[in-house]
Amino acid sequence: MGRRGVREEIVEAALEQFHVQGYNAAGVKVITDAAGVPKGSFYNHFDSKEALAVVALQRYGAEHPVRELAGGHGEPLTRLRAHFESIRDDVVRHEFTRGCLLGNLGAEVADHSEVIREAVRQGLAQWTEAIAVVLAEARDAGALRTGVDPRATAGFIVNAWEGSLIRARADRSADAFESFFALVFGALLPAGDTASARQ
Amino acid sequence: MGRRGVREEIVEAALEQFHVQGYNAAGVKVITDAAGVPKGSFYNHFDSKEALAVVALQRYGAEHPVRELAGGHGEPLTRLRAHFESIRDDVVRHEFTRGCLLGNLGAEVADHSEVIREAVRQGLAQWTEAIAVVLAEARDAGALRTGVDPRATAGFIVNAWEGSLIRARADRSADAFESFFALVFGALLPAGDTASARQ
Repeated sequence: MGRRGVREEIVEAALEQFHVQGYNAAGVKVITDAAGVPKGSFYNHFDSKEALAVVALQRYGAEHPVRELAGGHGEPLTRLRAHFESIRDDVVRHEFTRGCLLGNLGAEVADHSEVIREAVRQGLAQWTEAIAVVLAEARDAGALRTGVDPRATAGFIVNAWEGSLIRARADRSADAFESFFALVFGALLPAGDTASARQ
Repeated sequence: MGRRGVREEIVEAALEQFHVQGYNAAGVKVITDAAGVPKGSFYNHFDSKEALAVVALQRYGAEHPVRELAGGHGEPLTRLRAHFESIRDDVVRHEFTRGCLLGNLGAEVADHSEVIREAVRQGLAQWTEAIAVVLAEARDAGALRTGVDPRATAGFIVNAWEGSLIRARADRSADAFESFFALVFGALLPAGDTASARQ
């Protein structure tokens, strides 16, 4: 295995172990064992577990399935719903475990590591930005009332999703997702027509 | 210090340490040191750190300031807003750290401990129930449109709050709270009058 290969194996294993176990529960030995590399090789590639977590968070953000959002097929709000349905399906497939790495490390580690906090902040901001673009598109197409602030609303939707994930894991149930879809798409994002009639 | 005194010191220290450090970062020695009791005394009172976490979560839920909700002073939605403003003020006072113990242990540990998952589930369910009562009161007083489902909406609001807390900590900013208040009280919970005019 070449030098690049070892580093890549460590990143992939860390992504998985941080996601499944959490940051503090996944020690360097747990990660190098999962990667199938000697523990001693770790510090040839990373200064610390903290530095590795930053790389893992960036990788996670880059792999996040935003393609349904920017794809351009179908109505903007239909794409937005499909995006969250796809994440929900992943969570159901994992029997309501794992959640979102950004939210998990945000809850567990952001208070204690500036670099991890910054990586979580950036990941959530990028996701919010992608959703804000779709909401602006929906608004411009008349599918959303004009008073909607795309960025604030996108941020709130991301936050509501992160909390719904924690709740779904605590409940081992999709109830929180059902409420998310009903309230975000049924009440929070009112259709342009209805809103026009209301004004 | 009597036997009950030691147990109580451990519970209080655990509540603080789990909240500040997280579950895995707060070992038994960290907790007994913070409690000012010998590490050896721990297992006279608790079978495991896991069992202690369940007690700490129950204590946290019992201490949660729901008094503004059930108090009966003022309009129901005004009380609901004051409730979240009070929690927000606590978070700002702690400079956007700590968050909510239920959400934190939900994100970090619920996947790995059935008893902790159940304690988180119960804590969030009790909080949701208290908010559902206020929403039902608002709806019956005509301050909310009749189509609102108090329990599903209350659950969503709690979940949105938990996610907003993670985001505020990642951002070290109150922006997520501002969006929460604007969208929950401005868009999600439409006034009864507006809704009547809309129907």
